[in-house]
Amino acid sequence: MTETIKTDVVIVGAGPVGLFAVFELGLLDIRAHVVDILDRPGGQCAELYPEKPIYDIPALPVVTGQQLTDNLLEQIKPFQPTFHFSEMVTGLERLPDDRFLLSTNGGERFDTKVVVIAAGGGSFQPKRPPIPGVEAFEGKSVHYAVRRMEAFRGRHVLIVGGGDSALDWTLNLAPLAARVTLLHRRDAFRAAPDSVNKMRALVDAGVIDLTLGQAVELIGENGVLEAVRVKRDDGSTHEIAADDMLPFFGLTMKLGPIADWGLQLNENLVPVDTEKFETTTPGIFAIGDINAYPGKLKLILSGFHEAALMAQAAARRIDPERRIVFQYTTSSSNLQKKLGVA
Amino acid sequence: MTETIKTDVVIVGAGPVGLFAVFELGLLDIRAHVVDILDRPGGQCAELYPEKPIYDIPALPVVTGQQLTDNLLEQIKPFQPTFHFSEMVTGLERLPDDRFLLSTNGGERFDTKVVVIAAGGGSFQPKRPPIPGVEAFEGKSVHYAVRRMEAFRGRHVLIVGGGDSALDWTLNLAPLAARVTLLHRRDAFRAAPDSVNKMRALVDAGVIDLTLGQAVELIGENGVLEAVRVKRDDGSTHEIAADDMLPFFGLTMKLGPIADWGLQLNENLVPVDTEKFETTTPGIFAIGDINAYPGKLKLILSGFHEAALMAQAAARRIDPERRIVFQYTTSSSNLQKKLGVA
Repeated sequence: MTETIKTDVVIVGAGPVGLFAVFELGLLDIRAHVVDILDRPGGQCAELYPEKPIYDIPALPVVTGQQLTDNLLEQIKPFQPTFHFSEMVTGLERLPDDRFLLSTNGGERFDTKVVVIAAGGGSFQPKRPPIPGVEAFEGKSVHYAVRRMEAFRGRHVLIVGGGDSALDWTLNLAPLAARVTLLHRRDAFRAAPDSVNKMRALVDAGVIDLTLGQAVELIGENGVLEAVRVKRDDGSTHEIAADDMLPFFGLTMKLGPIADWGLQLNENLVPVDTEKFETTTPGIFAIGDINAYPGKLKLILSGFHEAALMAQAAARRIDPERRIVFQYTTSSSNLQKKLGVA
Repeated sequence: MTETIKTDVVIVGAGPVGLFAVFELGLLDIRAHVVDILDRPGGQCAELYPEKPIYDIPALPVVTGQQLTDNLLEQIKPFQPTFHFSEMVTGLERLPDDRFLLSTNGGERFDTKVVVIAAGGGSFQPKRPPIPGVEAFEGKSVHYAVRRMEAFRGRHVLIVGGGDSALDWTLNLAPLAARVTLLHRRDAFRAAPDSVNKMRALVDAGVIDLTLGQAVELIGENGVLEAVRVKRDDGSTHEIAADDMLPFFGLTMKLGPIADWGLQLNENLVPVDTEKFETTTPGIFAIGDINAYPGKLKLILSGFHEAALMAQAAARRIDPERRIVFQYTTSSSNLQKKLGVA
């Protein structure tokens, strides 16, 4: 377990709205920690439709999810947020002094005055392969993400899937593992052509194995995997020896641990007021697609507005004595200094 | 008087928020008429700081007022709004069938189901020169804008001021008028250097006159101007014969006629709810800097959000039977068709 990080604000979610919250808080001199379950910023925008054009961001007639993310990262650069990627916030408890303790599945802990939930539709969670009893192996022999590559040195690794994650990890773990086997339903891959070519070259060179079929049974005891039974298209089966299995079947959106944080929920959304975008728990704010209020539209631009109003309220909570003077970036040399442009 | 225009929506104000309202209404198949007192779109953004950078438009790390306006015009192009520039909405009355009659100082009339006030700080109005009794000449011999150049053919015109408007009209009216005299306090001009050079060339060629000093008295009767008394720096005065005077002393922001529309006002702002951004008069919405609600920040980005929620409510008022399905521009081929991209 790492040391507890003491801070003013933790933003849960590094999608466009979480990123813009960094900007609005930054203008008020508040530095933020940002936690996201994905391994990079952008949220579903960058994860689900990085290349797809968005047409309704004001004054950007057309922008892709990735460009939008890149623009926002550029815009918040002066405020140097600390990102904590590939971490899911699992715990949120109120401390006696009106602060909050946030903890992640990776063992990070934050002691914070303000929590901003900008979690979109919830947590992206890996899709579980339809193999009976897979739960018993999860965390021990079945892994949905690679936290430390070293953990796979000298092991027999079975990677399942045909997309970019499956191919990328096949290529990255090949030099470390005792043996990497890539298992996919059919001999066609959705991954980048370059990765597919590299994978095929390794197969031709005898460095890794490619097997076609579906994993139907995990063989082993107490969560320790020994082999995986694979069913071919013709219905016959065979076993592949494996210490670890890495299934990459895509991501699904779940509300996840937010449901357990004691917030009043309404159809998996967090009700907020429209003055501060604060939840029924003072100090916990919710902005973007995760919140609900009369008139709510799940538009990125609405999340931006909510971030701005939230920041004012968060600043007052962080320092109730502080007098906040509303300023414009166009005319305030004070704000321009913070932005590094004056 | 022109024919009354029957329409679903009139937007009062062609600033960034008024322009984005065209977009959000357009996505819902609602065409808008847009009226603005200025002679072009952009509102105070383009009028007061066209070249100044704005830093807080989400995903646009830096943009000038003019660029922001240009981007928005590009974005709303598919929805072909009808602009009515250089028109001030002076009258707003409710018609018996729950429609509204809007009229402008230029004689335009709109019979509309919905009115969207996106008037920012109010109306830009020309600053009146500090000459006793000038009001009596306004509209007859003293003009703050040129509506029809032909009205000045063969006349003696005195143009007062040292900025772009004064210089531009000096150059434009010189070929038409019997004589143009430019009057300015001192021999230094804030206008574009090119215009100043052209003006000086006309003075050198004897085509127009340049006089330094201040207008202190208008001579004439019943609003018909005969001459203007000008005071020199040394205190001495002289008269310049003039049929018309065009003072260009800049613009000032006034709430203007909005105060007379029977809306409940609070410190010159229009209170609205945060679900529809509707005023206390059903069918009249107010978005952007002109409105007030708990938490309100006078940010352009808030006006964008308000425009989106207003559009949903306006659509329901325009056609209460209609079933509105909320769609995303990223995934809806229906919306993409409207945008001309699918």
